[in-house]
Amino acid sequence: MVLNSGGRVLEFDWPAIRIGTGEYPDGPTGVTVIHFPNRAFGAVQVMGGGPGTVNTDYLRLGWAIRELDAVVFAGGSWYGLEDTTAVATALKDDDIRDGLWDNLSLSVGAIIYDLGDRRLNEIYPDKRLAQAAFRAARTGAFPLGAHGAGRFAKTGGLFGCNAYSGQGAAFRQVGELKLAAFVVVNALGVVTRRDGRVAACYRDAGWPEDLRPADLFSNYPASRKGGWNPLAAGQSGSRNTTVGAIITNQKLDRAQLDRLATHVSASMSRALQPYATEFDGDVLYAVSTAELDRNVDQSETPNFDLDILAAEVMWDAILSSVPEQPEVLRPASGQPPDPDVLARHVGEYVFSPIVSVSVTVDGGRLYAQASGKRKAYAIPLESTVELLPVSENVFTVPGRYPVTLDFTAGDRLVINPGHWQQTGVRRLN
Amino acid sequence: MVLNSGGRVLEFDWPAIRIGTGEYPDGPTGVTVIHFPNRAFGAVQVMGGGPGTVNTDYLRLGWAIRELDAVVFAGGSWYGLEDTTAVATALKDDDIRDGLWDNLSLSVGAIIYDLGDRRLNEIYPDKRLAQAAFRAARTGAFPLGAHGAGRFAKTGGLFGCNAYSGQGAAFRQVGELKLAAFVVVNALGVVTRRDGRVAACYRDAGWPEDLRPADLFSNYPASRKGGWNPLAAGQSGSRNTTVGAIITNQKLDRAQLDRLATHVSASMSRALQPYATEFDGDVLYAVSTAELDRNVDQSETPNFDLDILAAEVMWDAILSSVPEQPEVLRPASGQPPDPDVLARHVGEYVFSPIVSVSVTVDGGRLYAQASGKRKAYAIPLESTVELLPVSENVFTVPGRYPVTLDFTAGDRLVINPGHWQQTGVRRLN
Amino acid sequence: MVLNSGGRVLEFDWPAIRIGTGEYPDGPTGVTVIHFPNRAFGAVQVMGGGPGTVNTDYLRLGWAIRELDAVVFAGGSWYGLEDTTAVATALKDDDIRDGLWDNLSLSVGAIIYDLGDRRLNEIYPDKRLAQAAFRAARTGAFPLGAHGAGRFAKTGGLFGCNAYSGQGAAFRQVGELKLAAFVVVNALGVVTRRDGRVAACYRDAGWPEDLRPADLFSNYPASRKGGWNPLAAGQSGSRNTTVGAIITNQKLDRAQLDRLATHVSASMSRALQPYATEFDGDVLYAVSTAELDRNVDQSETPNFDLDILAAEVMWDAILSSVPEQPEVLRPASGQPPDPDVLARHVGEYVFSPIVSVSVTVDGGRLYAQASGKRKAYAIPLESTVELLPVSENVFTVPGRYPVTLDFTAGDRLVINPGHWQQTGVRRLN
Amino acid sequence: MVLNSGGRVLEFDWPAIRIGTGEYPDGPTGVTVIHFPNRAFGAVQVMGGGPGTVNTDYLRLGWAIRELDAVVFAGGSWYGLEDTTAVATALKDDDIRDGLWDNLSLSVGAIIYDLGDRRLNEIYPDKRLAQAAFRAARTGAFPLGAHGAGRFAKTGGLFGCNAYSGQGAAFRQVGELKLAAFVVVNALGVVTRRDGRVAACYRDAGWPEDLRPADLFSNYPASRKGGWNPLAAGQSGSRNTTVGAIITNQKLDRAQLDRLATHVSASMSRALQPYATEFDGDVLYAVSTAELDRNVDQSETPNFDLDILAAEVMWDAILSSVPEQPEVLRPASGQPPDPDVLARHVGEYVFSPIVSVSVTVDGGRLYAQASGKRKAYAIPLESTVELLPVSENVFTVPGRYPVTLDFTAGDRLVINPGHWQQTGVRRLN
Repeated sequence: MVLNSGGRVLEFDWPAIRIGTGEYPDGPTGVTVIHFPNRAFGAVQVMGGGPGTVNTDYLRLGWAIRELDAVVFAGGSWYGLEDTTAVATALKDDDIRDGLWDNLSLSVGAIIYDLGDRRLNEIYPDKRLAQAAFRAARTGAFPLGAHGAGRFAKTGGLFGCNAYSGQGAAFRQVGELKLAAFVVVNALGVVTRRDGRVAACYRDAGWPEDLRPADLFSNYPASRKGGWNPLAAGQSGSRNTTVGAIITNQKLDRAQLDRLATHVSASMSRALQPYATEFDGDVLYAVSTAELDRNVDQSETPNFDLDILAAEVMWDAILSSVPEQPEVLRPASGQPPDPDVLARHVGEYVFSPIVSVSVTVDGGRLYAQASGKRKAYAIPLESTVELLPVSENVFTVPGRYPVTLDFTAGDRLVINPGHWQQTGVRRLN
Repeated sequence: MVLNSGGRVLEFDWPAIRIGTGEYPDGPTGVTVIHFPNRAFGAVQVMGGGPGTVNTDYLRLGWAIRELDAVVFAGGSWYGLEDTTAVATALKDDDIRDGLWDNLSLSVGAIIYDLGDRRLNEIYPDKRLAQAAFRAARTGAFPLGAHGAGRFAKTGGLFGCNAYSGQGAAFRQVGELKLAAFVVVNALGVVTRRDGRVAACYRDAGWPEDLRPADLFSNYPASRKGGWNPLAAGQSGSRNTTVGAIITNQKLDRAQLDRLATHVSASMSRALQPYATEFDGDVLYAVSTAELDRNVDQSETPNFDLDILAAEVMWDAILSSVPEQPEVLRPASGQPPDPDVLARHVGEYVFSPIVSVSVTVDGGRLYAQASGKRKAYAIPLESTVELLPVSENVFTVPGRYPVTLDFTAGDRLVINPGHWQQTGVRRLN
Repeated sequence: MVLNSGGRVLEFDWPAIRIGTGEYPDGPTGVTVIHFPNRAFGAVQVMGGGPGTVNTDYLRLGWAIRELDAVVFAGGSWYGLEDTTAVATALKDDDIRDGLWDNLSLSVGAIIYDLGDRRLNEIYPDKRLAQAAFRAARTGAFPLGAHGAGRFAKTGGLFGCNAYSGQGAAFRQVGELKLAAFVVVNALGVVTRRDGRVAACYRDAGWPEDLRPADLFSNYPASRKGGWNPLAAGQSGSRNTTVGAIITNQKLDRAQLDRLATHVSASMSRALQPYATEFDGDVLYAVSTAELDRNVDQSETPNFDLDILAAEVMWDAILSSVPEQPEVLRPASGQPPDPDVLARHVGEYVFSPIVSVSVTVDGGRLYAQASGKRKAYAIPLESTVELLPVSENVFTVPGRYPVTLDFTAGDRLVINPGHWQQTGVRRLN
Repeated sequence: MVLNSGGRVLEFDWPAIRIGTGEYPDGPTGVTVIHFPNRAFGAVQVMGGGPGTVNTDYLRLGWAIRELDAVVFAGGSWYGLEDTTAVATALKDDDIRDGLWDNLSLSVGAIIYDLGDRRLNEIYPDKRLAQAAFRAARTGAFPLGAHGAGRFAKTGGLFGCNAYSGQGAAFRQVGELKLAAFVVVNALGVVTRRDGRVAACYRDAGWPEDLRPADLFSNYPASRKGGWNPLAAGQSGSRNTTVGAIITNQKLDRAQLDRLATHVSASMSRALQPYATEFDGDVLYAVSTAELDRNVDQSETPNFDLDILAAEVMWDAILSSVPEQPEVLRPASGQPPDPDVLARHVGEYVFSPIVSVSVTVDGGRLYAQASGKRKAYAIPLESTVELLPVSENVFTVPGRYPVTLDFTAGDRLVINPGHWQQTGVRRLN
């Protein structure tokens, strides 16, 4: 378990918000807790076709009561909803809330889908992780990129981009008005910059470097063909969801909070293209900490402007979520590795109860085949694929995506070493 | 932890439904799991003003996919939502579901409020209890009365009835058509029989024996005055919710499932009066196991009739939830207890970290005073109340409700011995 | 066109509400306009399966703006929605509202189904009638029974009761708090009194005089068989809708108005059994005139009580809607009418472009057959039925329902003379 | 009254859709009727903060019944809802539908705000116009630009762009799959092209020629300041709404239709920036004519692709709505007009009961002042403004927007002669 991890961090000054993240590196997967120590007012907009949520019905009733304690985002698809309920019970177990009706803890949340073929295991963020993240929450810092609930997020699956993604945040203050956007970006669509370019994508052959959504849509559905068919079996890696929260210190009534949620959510169609598809579960919470209760003339920045600005802050947050993309390694061109070295790599490597990879050598070449419930990226279940050497201990399966196999550790095979690595342990005979 | 407990049971023949209950007797509180081993189709109607729910947004999208695994009801207010997510993760941990997008576990649920001053502790049904109940689920039997999620339910708080309540069930087959209703009755209103009489109520002075809702409403709000003010502090014991599921084997499309949920939920206004108030969180799931896919003419029982019949089955289920009500004991009229005996009862009894009761003797009479976060029923926090003897070891505080104190065990004080008893342990000095 | 007609009237003192009704006696059908001269706040709950509404989406957004001008109810099914938009344009044409965005007229509404086989014509309340009713609106009086939008309402079609119905109203003041309920009762179910008896029903053979819903439901669907099959062709006379408004002078925020609408609508399941079926289009508006803005302690009657009381006021309103039921005439037992008299009745009577009735004589007996788009009550399309004499000029077709044919006028045949009469004019050869 | 007017037309081959438009040139304002002669299935998504709609509640119930007859869009804000109900009654009056419950006409609709200060009158499209447009409906052609309901639409009011707008349409066929988008574009935001440029805007001083939304948002709310304050009095000209329909021949179930509506509506945030604001009433209907019922494998273009493609077709439709923008005339630089000529222009010109313009001459210069309920574009109410000569009979008030005054006709003053002209008649003394 890793808490509050992350090198790139958004710093912001707003004590009414506390952020805690938790990660299981072996997934990797994680959770992000947004805790409002003074409670807040909340609303929600569900725009995607496959959401997972907790307690949204209560928010929709719109009582003008300051009682929202936390918004919780997690990986693990519907299994990650355990994280939202875990924060409610942690608030009680820690004696912050109790059983009196006006002091119950109200925790709402949503999840992203980070299971399927993007990982070689099915570890999910559970109650223990969520409660630890809640207890580690602190003010003023939000880890950006592949952290917390965005630990193994991806984007662009619709077009086969399969870019690594993460969580993002942005903060803006205009006079006394504060706006913060927090978002876990796991969209079926591509992240799009304000200059109209795709922010991250493992491009298909022949695609331009300055790829734009318009290039992909004008050629649709051909642009999908090579990559993805949502109706085909075993393609679950591209299920998606973008979940977020837009928070202001301006006191807003129910209709205004609803409008904020709706406007910002719809506006995310610019930064994520497409957005709100059947295979996204997009959920946006709108929250007011209500520290600022401006008078009616709203002289500087009317609540109406707040919506417009909030949509821009959310776009900033989405852009900040994009991590550096791992490189696709090219095989070395020189001499093949020494047969003795190759022989050391042979074995069966167990990644989890559901996936193993068997490495064999034949005619001075290394081959791999997966077994279990599903293939291991480019390593198929029903046949072998040749592993091409990059160096003595590092091999690759060339293609559109990074598939790097690192045998350096001897008893372990690390696929895609680095932030999203999957580790298989050699089975002892 | 007690599983599948209950003397009064509804037996029914429908293997597509499995029922498991779990209880913590020390609350007491509990959980009821309705598991559909072949999955089902679901819809939901939220009619109350204070619901707690999980995953209803997904149901509302109305995809025609058989993917509902479980409906979970629990005590513990919002803390009990942990039970719904716990069943989802149990389904995965037990390898019934996994991480593939078309094999995720879909668990939905709702909670009742059984905290506040109706119990002297704040134990809630947690992940461990819910997973045990799920694993104990079996077909053909539903425990009736104060069991499972209805372990410490109450009804009629609006009028100060404070009747003990529970969970109910009914089953009806018409030709091949099956209907089952399961419900946890914790209504602010009173349970009403088809002959127009209130099924259970600790009546106020002067109220007729054959009390009818019309008697209470015609005199409202005077009929509320003696009992309850929802806006007064510390009256949280009367927060309420009725949660249920209406299930049919008839295949229904989305609009039909919605109609079933809406019609049955609205119809519950007859059996629970009033229903769907601000202080109820009433939630009803409508589920189709879709084993019966009749042709269009629906010759015997059109889907339209199904709605009407379902509302009647639900009324039956509500009526079956009412347990036998504990008696209000009268003080004995004879000699007062021996002072030596009284002295043995003196001490401080700890019921939970939040409530203790101190028993003292003065002038041959026994007195009690509560301490901690709240009073212990009729035993106040800021003064003492005299305990009148029923027998040597049993005392009472006379009034509208049963308040029985049993010192028989010596080192323990049992309040309201029996199914809903609260046990205090004498503190050692 | 008849405006503000009605002998039985609810009088009430509340200048913030103006009521106007319009009727076309040739339908008969009509419209009821509830006008708020100082505008009001509104919310809506749609509970039935077949509603017709205008502008509810705007209400649902919940802006805290006093801008509701009118709630309009009409007969004519979806054609009667013209009445709601007609009131909006009348407000503009009369220079009460205009085109400035903060002075637009906001008129919302709903309709009942009073077409099909309950009338021998398809006249609907149109723009002209609605605007006249709006302009005739006055304060302090609401016509009860078969007037306005309830001019040809019916209830109990589910069980074949086919009772004549109408519109109802009730008013109650508690301290400064005012509550009014206005309702047009055209339910598929039966109107039920607080003593549990059905208020009006043409009973089937063998049904008890003190008929109760429980009698009908316990025997369902057999109790439906003789009367009605919603899926059979040509049975459209039993389509239904109950539309209403619950109005208070207490200022309520959006969530409170929603709760009022939901609670009162669900509670109508007691007075109308069943309620909110697939074949009802039940719609309830909740309106606050906001003249009373009580302080937070709500000392006398909290907003919570207001909901409970409002549901009772609505029940009163529903009961007040029931008109006196026309009698089923029995044939005279004595001598048959003189053949010369019978001969005078022979002819073809045109009721509307869609229904005519041909009266013939054969062997000293009178026969009738309908032609056109549909039958004329008990007078069939494809065969003749004998008309039995009640007197020289009055005949009947005996059965469960009143079918009285009055030839007194000579050139006209009046079926069911009286408030709901249908008049056919003899075709000249 | 002008029917089916328009030079630029989208032609398409789809007999299941008939289009009729009606316009009152004196507004100008109008209505667009989309009639489905074989009826269709419909759903709706309301995304804006100020909608006006009819019968959406019925659509939301989601019955799988082919019964949608028409979608009607109109100007006139809430007054234009009369057009939707008028089409329902026209269908009945023309004997296409009647009073039988399974043959009622179902007409749904929405309106745009084209009142306020953008016109010098308050003429709205009424029942007569809508019924004429319905009766003139024909297949295969949709007039583009400022026609039908888009007769006096505008866009970009948020930034003071105030571009003239209109209605758009696009059609696309992929194999057997057909998609059509019809839209009336009256957005508060700017129409945005796929290359990221604003399609039409009267730019403020200093704004670049290739204006992009990012330019405006990065500088927000300063970019709003010069133009518009939604909370200021008398600025109602910038109230807005974009209403549309996305139609496919693919049979879709309820959840799929909902998804189509939601996805396409959210995606419109790209073509209209911003979209779904508090001051837009954005409504989108999704309709299936269900002529194409493809088998489950959806081999060529899955329903999922249909959503993505539909969003592109809608973008095309929005772009097609933009009419050529009238030029801002510059005053002539040479000799001032002859005083005798100027004297001929003097007089009071009545534009409508609510606006007149008084033209005076003083010192060889022409001046104008408005009277009535509001100013006439740049001609103020409380002072005069000088009219600068462009030619002998044509004058202008220089500024950001076209304000051209044409006195050529002698007895009339035409402001902004051309497609959007306002005509004042000289008052006779």
